[in-house]
Amino acid sequence: MPQGKPSHVPDDGLTTRQRRARPLLIVHTGVGKGKSTAAFGLATRAWAQGWEIGVFQFVKSAKWRIGEEKALRVLGESGEGGAVTWNKMGEGWSWIQRPGTEADHAADAAEGWAQIKRDLAVERYRLYVLDEFTYPMKWGWVDVEDVVRTLRDRPGTQHVIITGRDADPRLLDAADLVTDMTKVKHPMDAGQKGQRGIEW
Amino acid sequence: MPQGKPSHVPDDGLTTRQRRARPLLIVHTGVGKGKSTAAFGLATRAWAQGWEIGVFQFVKSAKWRIGEEKALRVLGESGEGGAVTWNKMGEGWSWIQRPGTEADHAADAAEGWAQIKRDLAVERYRLYVLDEFTYPMKWGWVDVEDVVRTLRDRPGTQHVIITGRDADPRLLDAADLVTDMTKVKHPMDAGQKGQRGIEW
Repeated sequence: MPQGKPSHVPDDGLTTRQRRARPLLIVHTGVGKGKSTAAFGLATRAWAQGWEIGVFQFVKSAKWRIGEEKALRVLGESGEGGAVTWNKMGEGWSWIQRPGTEADHAADAAEGWAQIKRDLAVERYRLYVLDEFTYPMKWGWVDVEDVVRTLRDRPGTQHVIITGRDADPRLLDAADLVTDMTKVKHPMDAGQKGQRGIEW
Repeated sequence: MPQGKPSHVPDDGLTTRQRRARPLLIVHTGVGKGKSTAAFGLATRAWAQGWEIGVFQFVKSAKWRIGEEKALRVLGESGEGGAVTWNKMGEGWSWIQRPGTEADHAADAAEGWAQIKRDLAVERYRLYVLDEFTYPMKWGWVDVEDVVRTLRDRPGTQHVIITGRDADPRLLDAADLVTDMTKVKHPMDAGQKGQRGIEW
């Protein structure tokens, strides 16, 4: 919890107001819990500000994130905050435990990234959640240099959060805010399986 | 993101179903971002399961968490998930930048904890978010041994999430799941102040 006091004032020619409005690239990585949950928590905060939000679900199984999807749908439809668009392309981009070759999944992921590029170009959302996007980057399904260049050069004030383990060093270098969720203790170490309401 | 495969099956006499329903004590600590956001993200997941949720806000300033409070109010009132009770006791338990002596704030925090004990005893909620509760523990405003004993002995299936820096070792010892949010990079290091929609 930062105390709101920067350690120094940068000599970048920007006013505090301009610096406050600077678009952020945020990465939640590490092997601990909370990478995606914190990203969806940020999305609810952005929703409360009335921002348009785009979620891009690059998760392992289509049944993941059902709680988050339901919550953001209810929030988006309430009219009390920003609109929320949940981008999943049907079963798309969820490549484990479903039919299809690796080439199919790579093509799905590439199409997902192409959609994000189109949305960034027209400044469609104020906040983008690219959930588990580190994996298609790691597996070469999207080009890391293209991702980093596109995010660096994105127009306007579009915040982007990327979650997942094993974030590429080039992505971390480009990011403004990086948190590593470090596992200290997990019930699975004591033989416990995932729990409804906690894991999904 | 655990793969759902425990490293071993414990010899505790419980079935997998019983273990899945075991109440969890979760701690999000460390100096990085995402401790509270991940806790509120978990709360939306619990809401989607239809669970009753109690939030206990032990934050530094009353204007904090306004986005999360609004989101959980809208979700709770939607009737599509569980009910949400946001416990703040008016201005209560927010001890920085407001009038009052340290003794007042300590008494507020102690009363907050007394309320949590009463709720745990009657199993009022399925999920408790004790936001920034590590601070009153650290400052001696609540008794750590009492907290740990009460949480260890709580009845039923009540999940508890505690957030904040500098979690007491006795709390970590009692916890089932601990994540340390480790700061890798933060915009304030580059002289940037907090941003609306991101920090609050």
